[in-house]
Amino acid sequence: MTSILSPVDPGLHDLFDRFSACGATAGGGVHRLCGSAEDGEARDVFAAIVRDLGGAMRTDAVGNQFGLFALAGRPDAPLVMLGSHLDSQPQGGRFDGALGVAIALRVAATLLRAEVAGATSDADLCVANWTNEEGARFRPSLLGSGSYVGHHRPEDALAIRDDDGVTLGEALRAIGHRGIDPAPPLPACYLELHVEQGRVLTEAGATIGIVARNWGAIKIDAVFTGAQAHTGPCPMPLRRDALLAGAYAIAEVRAIADRWPGRVHTSVSRIRVAPNSANVVPSRVELSVEIRSADDAILNQAGALADEALRAAAERARTDLAILARVERPIRPLPGAMRDLMALAAEETGHRAIPMDTVAGHDALSLLGACPIGLVFVPSVDGIAHDAAEMTLDSDMQAGLAVMLRATERLCRAGGSPERAIRGDAR
Amino acid sequence: MTSILSPVDPGLHDLFDRFSACGATAGGGVHRLCGSAEDGEARDVFAAIVRDLGGAMRTDAVGNQFGLFALAGRPDAPLVMLGSHLDSQPQGGRFDGALGVAIALRVAATLLRAEVAGATSDADLCVANWTNEEGARFRPSLLGSGSYVGHHRPEDALAIRDDDGVTLGEALRAIGHRGIDPAPPLPACYLELHVEQGRVLTEAGATIGIVARNWGAIKIDAVFTGAQAHTGPCPMPLRRDALLAGAYAIAEVRAIADRWPGRVHTSVSRIRVAPNSANVVPSRVELSVEIRSADDAILNQAGALADEALRAAAERARTDLAILARVERPIRPLPGAMRDLMALAAEETGHRAIPMDTVAGHDALSLLGACPIGLVFVPSVDGIAHDAAEMTLDSDMQAGLAVMLRATERLCRAGGSPERAIRGDAR
Repeated sequence: MTSILSPVDPGLHDLFDRFSACGATAGGGVHRLCGSAEDGEARDVFAAIVRDLGGAMRTDAVGNQFGLFALAGRPDAPLVMLGSHLDSQPQGGRFDGALGVAIALRVAATLLRAEVAGATSDADLCVANWTNEEGARFRPSLLGSGSYVGHHRPEDALAIRDDDGVTLGEALRAIGHRGIDPAPPLPACYLELHVEQGRVLTEAGATIGIVARNWGAIKIDAVFTGAQAHTGPCPMPLRRDALLAGAYAIAEVRAIADRWPGRVHTSVSRIRVAPNSANVVPSRVELSVEIRSADDAILNQAGALADEALRAAAERARTDLAILARVERPIRPLPGAMRDLMALAAEETGHRAIPMDTVAGHDALSLLGACPIGLVFVPSVDGIAHDAAEMTLDSDMQAGLAVMLRATERLCRAGGSPERAIRGDAR
Repeated sequence: MTSILSPVDPGLHDLFDRFSACGATAGGGVHRLCGSAEDGEARDVFAAIVRDLGGAMRTDAVGNQFGLFALAGRPDAPLVMLGSHLDSQPQGGRFDGALGVAIALRVAATLLRAEVAGATSDADLCVANWTNEEGARFRPSLLGSGSYVGHHRPEDALAIRDDDGVTLGEALRAIGHRGIDPAPPLPACYLELHVEQGRVLTEAGATIGIVARNWGAIKIDAVFTGAQAHTGPCPMPLRRDALLAGAYAIAEVRAIADRWPGRVHTSVSRIRVAPNSANVVPSRVELSVEIRSADDAILNQAGALADEALRAAAERARTDLAILARVERPIRPLPGAMRDLMALAAEETGHRAIPMDTVAGHDALSLLGACPIGLVFVPSVDGIAHDAAEMTLDSDMQAGLAVMLRATERLCRAGGSPERAIRGDAR
């Protein structure tokens, strides 16, 4: 196959910078929480680009944006879908999600140009911007992509409230992105590029990571309930301190990771405390606990230890304990044919690729099982993620675009079938 | 002396209920944070009552309310001041502060009635409602009374921001209680009644506590600074988790109290976490630490242990540590003549009184050293405080009023001198 993309695509930079300007922070990152005004700006940019390219915009009930590009020249052609997300963590990095969306749009632009020049395709193309991937403002994460495949009913997703009591539906309406369009049908295949958010690629000297498996995760939302009391006169043995229970739990959850160094990641990174006044023993503390591992047996053991840590913390601080939610994300392999195709695309474009795990969740994992999916990583400098200092080098962005373009081009010619795409068959 | 108050003052109940209605919560308590609309309502009630009684209202620059009642019938008479506070903790109790204000106003009403009936006084009376005693919305606590005696400059107090960035000055202006009146001059003496918020009176079978000493306190505001990172891929040894540091500190501060059972009270009851997202390692955690003891040597040792606990927690979690504030409230005895006067008033009104400590801070302590002060406690059922379930029995409320009235009556006749008041001398 001949390349249809020059080695450096100047359009990628311009496009990525347009997204980075939405919610830009002084530290070089973005603060673009799902459903915020800044998210609305980025969504407007997305829609404008889709329309400039001659695509059709659809926004579904939960705010997922789909740019549809006719390439096949016939009705009922299969769909090749590319996507990622434009929402960010608080004071987050500008590459997380947005780079995948920008590259997907550049792939679309390039394939549309090639079509004009006479290239043939047996699939249409769709570029998706999924709502609330991060799970920062609204929980759980992967909400838009999960709704798309039926993990959540739209009405349930729209009713989720942020910490200020605003629902996702209200937030989307306020920024003009609560849609009424039907979502496109399930695609023949789904491809996503994301920044690695770790150091594996850099340490291996590789530019492209082809995700072969996702780490499993157990996520627990727990509430400790004690009793308000005056921090002065109330005797210590009578106190029922919910924040003390939380502190015991946080320390113990951290200790679980030390039992399997490098094989279990744990965290408690979100806490809500009431009444949170310096002179009042806290009566209610809500915690979000995460346990991650790539080994099923270890994950289950670690999860059981976390359950026990929560119970022990409650008992020690004389509080009650309630589990609001306990979600398990299983460890799963990613489809082999899509991995082989991505490896071929990397080889054809001259970039060194390695198979690797994803520890974090990504929208592609929502679609795993619904259709063949591929997930590609490009390096994050120093592995920094969820921080304004997050960085991916220009050369790695271009490498990611080249690999995504080559793979998509092959998929489109093959009607979305990764097996045929590898063989170079047209449909 | 003959009593000028009937054994039960029905006016006290009506008055107290009017305050309790401002910010009343379903649980029987009040949510009446300083500078809130509910606080504004309670302040309006205070001002209306002062005016109904024929007093003069003054509101000073930091929102302290003073009701001035002429009793002496001559210019430049000394002032006897009674006071407490109408702000509450979040979801707090209705007796904390408000009972002291209500009783002070009933004392004023009774002495005014007595004056009409021919009683003589050689002092005028002032009833104060101090701004932001609780330190819940704005910190530090005792802000209004502290400003009155010069611990804070008014402009500094007004510039203090709540957690939403609203200044005290803005909050007071919004409810129409940022005043321009000069505060009254320092009184000849100051008297305060407060609910005990502990169980000492009940366990001793006494109705009146005469505070002889305050516990010392060390209050530390500390900030741990780590680095945002993705809770998934970021390797555990590379994390710099500010919430983990906070958890270690909270657990260790609790352990300090166990080294001196019953003699040291510790707490961490307020925490602010950023970015507080389930998938982001927290980069900044602010904690408010309290250490209290009635023994200077122990307090200093416990404070040093708290300092060390903060340092060790930061090191263990690989974060930086900054101390924003470290305030020591010394252990001090309360003036003997005022205590003797209160004991006499209790004896005369037939209520059993005991000397006791205050563990909590109260506005009276702001005035300690500026003028003779007296601080009187009435029992709290089960010692419950800073909670909607806080309760003081009707009979104890009436006992407190009787003692306060008798002591104030004696002080007014004696021109505000506790020594002369004990002897029964007119000025």
